[in-house]
Amino acid sequence: MIHSVYRAPGEQTRFDLKPEEIGAALQQPGGLLWVDLAGESAEDSRSLLRETFGFHPLAVDDALEESHVPKVDDWGEYLYLVLHAVVFDLKADEPLHTHELDLFLGKNYLVTYRTEPIPAVDRTWAACQRDERHLQKGVGRLLYKVIDELVADYMPAVEAMDEAIDGIEDEVFGQPGPTLLASIFTLKRALLHLRRIIAPQREVLNKLARGDFGVLDEGDRVFFRDVYDHLVRLYDISEGLRDLVGGALDTYLSVVSNRMNEVMRTLTVITILFLPVSFLVGFFGTNFFQPVASLTAWTDRPAFVLMLLAMVVVPAGMFLWIRKRAWM
Amino acid sequence: MIHSVYRAPGEQTRFDLKPEEIGAALQQPGGLLWVDLAGESAEDSRSLLRETFGFHPLAVDDALEESHVPKVDDWGEYLYLVLHAVVFDLKADEPLHTHELDLFLGKNYLVTYRTEPIPAVDRTWAACQRDERHLQKGVGRLLYKVIDELVADYMPAVEAMDEAIDGIEDEVFGQPGPTLLASIFTLKRALLHLRRIIAPQREVLNKLARGDFGVLDEGDRVFFRDVYDHLVRLYDISEGLRDLVGGALDTYLSVVSNRMNEVMRTLTVITILFLPVSFLVGFFGTNFFQPVASLTAWTDRPAFVLMLLAMVVVPAGMFLWIRKRAWM
Amino acid sequence: MIHSVYRAPGEQTRFDLKPEEIGAALQQPGGLLWVDLAGESAEDSRSLLRETFGFHPLAVDDALEESHVPKVDDWGEYLYLVLHAVVFDLKADEPLHTHELDLFLGKNYLVTYRTEPIPAVDRTWAACQRDERHLQKGVGRLLYKVIDELVADYMPAVEAMDEAIDGIEDEVFGQPGPTLLASIFTLKRALLHLRRIIAPQREVLNKLARGDFGVLDEGDRVFFRDVYDHLVRLYDISEGLRDLVGGALDTYLSVVSNRMNEVMRTLTVITILFLPVSFLVGFFGTNFFQPVASLTAWTDRPAFVLMLLAMVVVPAGMFLWIRKRAWM
Amino acid sequence: MIHSVYRAPGEQTRFDLKPEEIGAALQQPGGLLWVDLAGESAEDSRSLLRETFGFHPLAVDDALEESHVPKVDDWGEYLYLVLHAVVFDLKADEPLHTHELDLFLGKNYLVTYRTEPIPAVDRTWAACQRDERHLQKGVGRLLYKVIDELVADYMPAVEAMDEAIDGIEDEVFGQPGPTLLASIFTLKRALLHLRRIIAPQREVLNKLARGDFGVLDEGDRVFFRDVYDHLVRLYDISEGLRDLVGGALDTYLSVVSNRMNEVMRTLTVITILFLPVSFLVGFFGTNFFQPVASLTAWTDRPAFVLMLLAMVVVPAGMFLWIRKRAWM
Amino acid sequence: MIHSVYRAPGEQTRFDLKPEEIGAALQQPGGLLWVDLAGESAEDSRSLLRETFGFHPLAVDDALEESHVPKVDDWGEYLYLVLHAVVFDLKADEPLHTHELDLFLGKNYLVTYRTEPIPAVDRTWAACQRDERHLQKGVGRLLYKVIDELVADYMPAVEAMDEAIDGIEDEVFGQPGPTLLASIFTLKRALLHLRRIIAPQREVLNKLARGDFGVLDEGDRVFFRDVYDHLVRLYDISEGLRDLVGGALDTYLSVVSNRMNEVMRTLTVITILFLPVSFLVGFFGTNFFQPVASLTAWTDRPAFVLMLLAMVVVPAGMFLWIRKRAWM
Repeated sequence: MIHSVYRAPGEQTRFDLKPEEIGAALQQPGGLLWVDLAGESAEDSRSLLRETFGFHPLAVDDALEESHVPKVDDWGEYLYLVLHAVVFDLKADEPLHTHELDLFLGKNYLVTYRTEPIPAVDRTWAACQRDERHLQKGVGRLLYKVIDELVADYMPAVEAMDEAIDGIEDEVFGQPGPTLLASIFTLKRALLHLRRIIAPQREVLNKLARGDFGVLDEGDRVFFRDVYDHLVRLYDISEGLRDLVGGALDTYLSVVSNRMNEVMRTLTVITILFLPVSFLVGFFGTNFFQPVASLTAWTDRPAFVLMLLAMVVVPAGMFLWIRKRAWM
Repeated sequence: MIHSVYRAPGEQTRFDLKPEEIGAALQQPGGLLWVDLAGESAEDSRSLLRETFGFHPLAVDDALEESHVPKVDDWGEYLYLVLHAVVFDLKADEPLHTHELDLFLGKNYLVTYRTEPIPAVDRTWAACQRDERHLQKGVGRLLYKVIDELVADYMPAVEAMDEAIDGIEDEVFGQPGPTLLASIFTLKRALLHLRRIIAPQREVLNKLARGDFGVLDEGDRVFFRDVYDHLVRLYDISEGLRDLVGGALDTYLSVVSNRMNEVMRTLTVITILFLPVSFLVGFFGTNFFQPVASLTAWTDRPAFVLMLLAMVVVPAGMFLWIRKRAWM
Repeated sequence: MIHSVYRAPGEQTRFDLKPEEIGAALQQPGGLLWVDLAGESAEDSRSLLRETFGFHPLAVDDALEESHVPKVDDWGEYLYLVLHAVVFDLKADEPLHTHELDLFLGKNYLVTYRTEPIPAVDRTWAACQRDERHLQKGVGRLLYKVIDELVADYMPAVEAMDEAIDGIEDEVFGQPGPTLLASIFTLKRALLHLRRIIAPQREVLNKLARGDFGVLDEGDRVFFRDVYDHLVRLYDISEGLRDLVGGALDTYLSVVSNRMNEVMRTLTVITILFLPVSFLVGFFGTNFFQPVASLTAWTDRPAFVLMLLAMVVVPAGMFLWIRKRAWM
Repeated sequence: MIHSVYRAPGEQTRFDLKPEEIGAALQQPGGLLWVDLAGESAEDSRSLLRETFGFHPLAVDDALEESHVPKVDDWGEYLYLVLHAVVFDLKADEPLHTHELDLFLGKNYLVTYRTEPIPAVDRTWAACQRDERHLQKGVGRLLYKVIDELVADYMPAVEAMDEAIDGIEDEVFGQPGPTLLASIFTLKRALLHLRRIIAPQREVLNKLARGDFGVLDEGDRVFFRDVYDHLVRLYDISEGLRDLVGGALDTYLSVVSNRMNEVMRTLTVITILFLPVSFLVGFFGTNFFQPVASLTAWTDRPAFVLMLLAMVVVPAGMFLWIRKRAWM
Repeated sequence: MIHSVYRAPGEQTRFDLKPEEIGAALQQPGGLLWVDLAGESAEDSRSLLRETFGFHPLAVDDALEESHVPKVDDWGEYLYLVLHAVVFDLKADEPLHTHELDLFLGKNYLVTYRTEPIPAVDRTWAACQRDERHLQKGVGRLLYKVIDELVADYMPAVEAMDEAIDGIEDEVFGQPGPTLLASIFTLKRALLHLRRIIAPQREVLNKLARGDFGVLDEGDRVFFRDVYDHLVRLYDISEGLRDLVGGALDTYLSVVSNRMNEVMRTLTVITILFLPVSFLVGFFGTNFFQPVASLTAWTDRPAFVLMLLAMVVVPAGMFLWIRKRAWM
């Protein structure tokens, strides 16, 4: 669907302009036009972007054809931006997804293009419908509004991951198992993904905040710096979370190794205590001491007492030796 | 609570000014005003910061709304700084916490804002009450005083961690266990946290020491360089501690693996020594040598002596073979 | 084989020029000559490159003699480029191979040299045969076309690896074994190789996009920037895949260690349950209780009941103790 | 103790000047004064440094109060340097220690301050007593002499570590044990420490060699570059040693894991060979074949031969199966 | 031995000049003098370098006294270079050694100094004897020739390591053992060493290729760039090999861990199958079922059949349970 909103200077805001009206609006320097292409077919979008707006074919291909890392390209008359909205669902197999948002920004217009739903854009649209002032402050402030909403959606995702790691840390000293391991690795992957999309977006905002581009007003720089600070902080937090997840994995492996150690110690102790005495009773179970051989002295009372004694003394000695080796 | 102290040139120091007095004081270029907002409600703080001081909404939002990484923003007329005080308690589950301190610094005023108690600020305040000279040297020196106190609180935390690592290193070759493991990981996390707050604060101080900002006097730069050196050293020490903790973990795991090795060797030796002879006595415990079969020669004296011999020779041979394999 | 195509301004495109025609064509500034040396002998190539084109001996040696990392050398009159085409076959022992493509680029000519088949060059050649316009836009656009095709072949390789990693991740929690391990390491190696050839090619394209070279038109820079963005993205994806493969290996090792743990626990439990009672029955199997010694009370009914009881109570007690130690 | 040596131009060298003489000497531009404060109390030092020399309070505090990372501060009239002498004793628990040396360097004086003995300074002092020429070449050359001696003491420490690592590498494939492990970790820690003090000192020398400071003569730069090269090389060697120690630890762990593997294989082989036949003899030791049941055919000669056969065939079959699994 | 070769402009090449002839030759700007000091004593070399050539004492000390990392120092009139020749023998305990080559390069002379044999220098010397043209192209080209030969010797070493790694990778999935482990670590150490000498030499060549030095002709830069490219490639390959060796070690450890896992599984399965039935036969081997107690029903035929049945059912049940736990 193609949505559009246009505010000419001194006139009332108009919605859903016809294609020829869009062309006319572009000619008027003082107004502000926002065209939002949401899930529109590639051909329709291409013709609009190429013919009505006159964007460079390479820029249009970038927008329509494939997914990109976040970036900003300066085409002189306009900027082309790629940003990513984040979709997070801890329950899912792959908890973190991103939806690409392509933006074209001219002196008096903003074009947003997306193939998947991005609530941040919808929220900004709704805000513009409710309150015209969002359109009065110029295209830079409108862009800021869109990006600010986009970035605001990152925090709940980061917080959910933080909580998940807290849960893992509590569990890891308790009952470590394959499920816990799987969720550690899922979180690790999600954090890698998150960092990989935050880092280039931070760079994009840094460029906007430095005022590298002629299309944007000098005065709007502080707003982009504000979002840039947000992204710096998000990156910082996600770095911290990555370290925590790494630590949780190390803890997990250490706890498992510890527990294995304890298990093996027990096995060894039991074996050391019982194998010698089992041999002893096996010895006295041989048939040498039966009618055939006249070795009856070996199976008389004193021998029995001796064996009973050995069955106490041998394990006790073994146990003391184990204690000296400091296993238990 | 809103505390304020004001020293006009040539006048006596006044405490706890009324709002309108604050406005008047700001107009006087030669004085020095310090307003400390400690645990004040967000609305009251906002109105004061926005209306009386006239700070930019984005800066005020940064200060009031959420926690930030340490940074310094130059707003021309004033600086906005975020710093972190450290709270350390080795006994706690998460030994290291930080409390955020927001500062606004103009030519003739300093505003400190905090929602949690920060002793370093209180100490500076008390020093200003005791001794007016702290206010006479200008706003740069007052800022230095606050930051210096703040940074001074890091050293005890670092020293406590250093001692804790020493203790761990002593214990690790003795009796390694899950408690030790848990404290290694707790320390590791705390150190990660520490480095993450020291590094950006070092950058802030570096900027102050380089004299990037018009608000500050050239002559105060050496003081900020001094704090900067402190932070460089703190970062360096915390790096060293991080390596030590990492080494302690490696040692722990190696010692555990070593011990496991020893345990398994013992299990194996005992099993190798006793399983064959247990089989032997089992063999002579079968019923073939009883009345039914006339195999009495197998259970007569010579056979008994042979079995006794085998029960000495077999384990001894096994033992020599083990020795040759160099396990013990 | 030496292929050549030449388009003089305003004339018809000619194919497979004679050597003297090539020399003549080079003198004409407005035309565009493309010579493709595919699997040609080193001597023939050398004489053509040295004598007809007059390239520097070091550059010609670079092209003919040995394989190189991707690079671009500016020889003033012409550029010398080394690029790599990728050949990927997941089934092979070493799934990723690269074929080197050497290019010489002058104001009015392009020379491509390769000893192994490179489909991307063949496709561009075929496109030039079909459609003369590829030759009309100048040498920069022709170079762009070749590189674009070359880089386009990377994506299927990267996607195949991505799928392979997905498959590994599914398998790793199921039935981990040496085959899975081998394919993890094969993928890891392939990704290392991939990153090592993408990174310098990205740098080459970056230089082309920055317009460092006099041979290329300013206007072609956006096209090279487009390929550069492709390579940035490919590098980014391959970085992500590398992390995923590393994570898969960690997962594998953790799962194996987990499983080992479970196996050892079972061994230990079984041993703990059966060794004591085995000793017990061994005890009552000794010959003390037979005719020789008059210990008949030990083998009468009450003793039997006691032994049966012990054989229930001892393992049950052991089991409870194990439960308390939280292994199961 | 405060030592001092002073050489006025054209006069004889004087030792141990009185405080007022020091003040006078400082006023004379052409001479060279060296004051060495070794283990002097903080108050006496402070008064000398503050009042006689007039150093900045912050610089004096740095020198007197706490230990620092190596650095150089340019205070305009003079430089303040922090360097570290190394003390190495492989036998000690913590083999590497450093003693801090603080230096103040003016146009015509050098002040050295240390609380612990530093032989390198003593050696330079003795050289100055023996040979006046060390004082004639100016303050830059004197500083060079001190630093050169200081750095010369690093090499024996580095060589001792190198030898220790060689010894470890020989031992690690022989008889790895906890003592070896402990010395690996001790060396690792010492190398971390060494790198942490060499790196900033290298930076200090780099600054001196670049000639950033007005206090030093241009012509002395080559001497500082020489020491800088020494430190570069020391850093390089210590990096190499760090890799070797890391490799030794990996080797240790791999050898231990290998050995454990061998031990477990042996345990398993013995168990596999003996458990089945032990069961067999146990079977024939049951009381079913005794007078009560008339199962005498089971215990007659043919059955005996069968059992003997099984006791050969079963372990042999097990052994062949083990061989097929390629464990031994 | 001191070798020398001298070619004055327009004269015949002379060999082995007398010391005074060397001095005279240095005065003549148009000629080219090469002095090669191979295994010459330090004193003789020092006097020649200090007095005849007049090099700075620090540079001469660097050349004579101790080994250095590769570097280039610009002494204005001349350059001082340190390079390393590589000696590789895979069979040796430490396969990679380097021999240091010190070079002094003036406008019209080259001095090479080495204490160990370096074939690359000998080859260049022989080439100069065979063909005077090597001396006619100036000192820059002679230096290039020496360095080119030096660097050419690196490739066989790198290729031998490559093959060794290939061999290891084949072996690692077959029969991993301590010998394989030792050769992995030997290769790892050799590669670390290789990278550490290639990296600074690359930097030296980079400086030569950038034309930072007045002693060298602008026109010779392309030759040094060619060697620089060689070194870049060598570094790149050695980086790749390092990754492969790291991967081989990981593979080794994973394979060993896998195999251990299999061994333990077998041990556990055998134990689980035989321990319960061994207990069973032990139970029926007690003396309760003999004449003393009248428990004959327990040892009659039905009981025997029941025991036989249990001896089939219990292991079968155990086996099914193991299968369900998916170990085999």
